[in-house]
Amino acid sequence: MTEIRINHLQQLMNQHKLDTIAINPGPTLTYLTGLHFHLMERPTVLLFQKGRQPLLILPELELPKIADARIYLQTIPYGDDPSTWQEAFRKAFKHFDLEGAKIGLEPTRFRYLEISYLQMAAPTASFVNAEQLFGQLRIQKDDEEINEIHRAIQIAQQALKATLPMIKAGISELEIAAELSINLLRKGSDSELPFQPIVSSGPNSANPHAAPSSRRLEAGDLLVIDWGARSNGYCSDLTRTFGIQHLDSEFVEIFTAVLNSNAAGRNAGKPGAPAGEVDKAARAVIESAGYGKFFTHRTGHGLGLEDHETPYIFSENSLLLTEGMTYTVEPGIYLPDRGGVRIEDNMVVTAEGSETLSDFPRELTLLS
Amino acid sequence: MTEIRINHLQQLMNQHKLDTIAINPGPTLTYLTGLHFHLMERPTVLLFQKGRQPLLILPELELPKIADARIYLQTIPYGDDPSTWQEAFRKAFKHFDLEGAKIGLEPTRFRYLEISYLQMAAPTASFVNAEQLFGQLRIQKDDEEINEIHRAIQIAQQALKATLPMIKAGISELEIAAELSINLLRKGSDSELPFQPIVSSGPNSANPHAAPSSRRLEAGDLLVIDWGARSNGYCSDLTRTFGIQHLDSEFVEIFTAVLNSNAAGRNAGKPGAPAGEVDKAARAVIESAGYGKFFTHRTGHGLGLEDHETPYIFSENSLLLTEGMTYTVEPGIYLPDRGGVRIEDNMVVTAEGSETLSDFPRELTLLS
Repeated sequence: MTEIRINHLQQLMNQHKLDTIAINPGPTLTYLTGLHFHLMERPTVLLFQKGRQPLLILPELELPKIADARIYLQTIPYGDDPSTWQEAFRKAFKHFDLEGAKIGLEPTRFRYLEISYLQMAAPTASFVNAEQLFGQLRIQKDDEEINEIHRAIQIAQQALKATLPMIKAGISELEIAAELSINLLRKGSDSELPFQPIVSSGPNSANPHAAPSSRRLEAGDLLVIDWGARSNGYCSDLTRTFGIQHLDSEFVEIFTAVLNSNAAGRNAGKPGAPAGEVDKAARAVIESAGYGKFFTHRTGHGLGLEDHETPYIFSENSLLLTEGMTYTVEPGIYLPDRGGVRIEDNMVVTAEGSETLSDFPRELTLLS
Repeated sequence: MTEIRINHLQQLMNQHKLDTIAINPGPTLTYLTGLHFHLMERPTVLLFQKGRQPLLILPELELPKIADARIYLQTIPYGDDPSTWQEAFRKAFKHFDLEGAKIGLEPTRFRYLEISYLQMAAPTASFVNAEQLFGQLRIQKDDEEINEIHRAIQIAQQALKATLPMIKAGISELEIAAELSINLLRKGSDSELPFQPIVSSGPNSANPHAAPSSRRLEAGDLLVIDWGARSNGYCSDLTRTFGIQHLDSEFVEIFTAVLNSNAAGRNAGKPGAPAGEVDKAARAVIESAGYGKFFTHRTGHGLGLEDHETPYIFSENSLLLTEGMTYTVEPGIYLPDRGGVRIEDNMVVTAEGSETLSDFPRELTLLS
């Protein structure tokens, strides 16, 4: 497993003409080594260079974790006094050929903290945005990874099912979010949820990224719940929309448009199709219903060890889908100051098409 | 409140001779604006420049949040196609004087992603590690912030109290961690815990940063629980160590040394004392007990909107404590492959000395 991943990394480094890459704590480091480190004020950096053993610079107190590494790692530990950290980096770099090197970085993870230490220790090195390399590295999931995502979906679905009975007019978004979070853990999610659940009701549901508030549900509200669980690091990310007691006819109309859009998006993915086709298929349904300008975001994103990762599902994306890619389909319609609807499922590309991994009922359900 | 914070930022920019700073999503952005954004694959950047209105470059779908900003923000939104993002940055930069500018960055937050966009839009600008400025900005807590930390401590203490009855020989570290996480939410923590609880037993407790495992508690084990809650963004971070049924005499000896070290560390902080004195006071107790080389980490760290922030409590730190600084005191002794003890409390510097905000019993308790 790990050997396959390391070989893949080496192939990608050749393909992108990068002799050196530097990785800091996060899903990619975990994917390659099996180790978990927190991103903190102490710099932890894993260096890969062609023809050399990988090297990890890390805080002394993290050394015991190395016993669990899935690959052999040289280590350079440092103590708690920040004035000594630079020396650890200089020492580390003696093992590497960094004179004038181009060091590939993962742009969404690597911080100015780690860059500063690399720069001081290797002033002639330059940095390269290796977004493409890192995007490709984890994009195709193996069976074990898909099983974990599937398990994360089941945990999430069970947690929402257990939360539904408490949802009724008079209860607040924050109360629902707390109970849902508790149920996610109770049903077996990793303690670190992929994200804080979104519970947005009434006018708040018109904001796709609303944080739960103290607003209490009222009859006639739309209620958007966007939530996910984590299983051994792998994420699920689902959304369902409910009505409270009754909904006016326009809300029912946008609900139906989103439901049909979700189905069209879920049907569009297959090997060899551009990721953008999934967005176009979902968007066409909402546009033909007359709500195109209220579908204000892309149709989805990849998910795996991160809840947002490649492939991103936006119209212009020409990346070709291949078997094992996993992503969300989550069209929405948001009527400003009135309310919104979003329905989100998690997909995997199969040999012939794509499969919907999530199956929580999508149809309009009115809660008391 | 917000005006005080913005004025403080401007003073610090003058003091550090920085005309421009760039901030990405995280506690500092929240502290200054009242807004919460997730760190994701889309770049969100807040620019402050002397003499200009602050400017926020952000994804279109985040725009509704701006209504809740505590300060006036110019905004430049962009859509979902990444090929258009660069244009948003270029457009934004027309408002700013970035020719040859030095832009101060928060090193533990700012990523290569945001740096890349700034670089492309302002190729003559250079970046400065503004660690000092950002370290000073939030270091002194006002009463409202201290109340939130206190509340986060109370939530955490109530959660551990509710979890204790299930802790006994035969139960696993992961089961305890899940129940404790659930109780943290049930007692009122924000859904986003400051960190995943550490529950480490027997030999695992010798690793200060262990992740909970499937290991089941056995009679004679040391059990370290390091956990925290969050209240309106503010963190608590506590540790208690227990024995399971009985402990051998050396374990009791190291427990006593850590307990005394914790008390000495808690007594050492006062206005005008270097942060390093707290570390020295705690460390001296463990050294004189003969276990100095098994206390493998610094005595503590600041806490606030982040669970690790300035002031860091290590011997060499000459930073002078002042009223309103908050930090942890968490000495530990770790006997490799055998077991460890850590006792952690949360402190605030007062007018005359310092106050321990946490009061969960520290004395040795044997659980069944």
